[in-house]
Amino acid sequence: MTFKALITVTLRPSILDTQGKAAEHALEQLGYQQLSNVRIGKHIELLVEANSALDAELMVRNAAEKLLSNPVMENYTVALQPA
Amino acid sequence: MTFKALITVTLRPSILDTQGKAAEHALEQLGYQQLSNVRIGKHIELLVEANSALDAELMVRNAAEKLLSNPVMENYTVALQPA
Repeated sequence: MTFKALITVTLRPSILDTQGKAAEHALEQLGYQQLSNVRIGKHIELLVEANSALDAELMVRNAAEKLLSNPVMENYTVALQPA
Repeated sequence: MTFKALITVTLRPSILDTQGKAAEHALEQLGYQQLSNVRIGKHIELLVEANSALDAELMVRNAAEKLLSNPVMENYTVALQPA
């Protein structure tokens, strides 16, 4: 079966998000003072070929830990849906 | 009221995703042949100060179009939740 996996990778809250700070500063310059605490992470979509949703999720989590995220600095969440 | 906005920015399907291709190739090298069609976008979280959810969403969509995404190459979705 084919599943679509949505992986969200975010910096851990204790890690300074320089990209987010830059975006926040730019938003402020554009007049968006009401927007704050900008944090920027990654949104990854991919297709998984697996026998079951459980197999698919395990494989994606494994790949997220090994390659798609940096476990020292980042958290990730995985959501599966039918492809 | 304060809302939390989650913005997902993805490359339009017709645009070649070089970062996704690189990740896909690396996954293949690691033995994940079952993972394919990797697309990598941005996940942005921020806080919005607004009088209503509608005001908050309009402001975030405006900011997404002006600064957080590139409307020529990218699509975005906005989801609001209570902060």
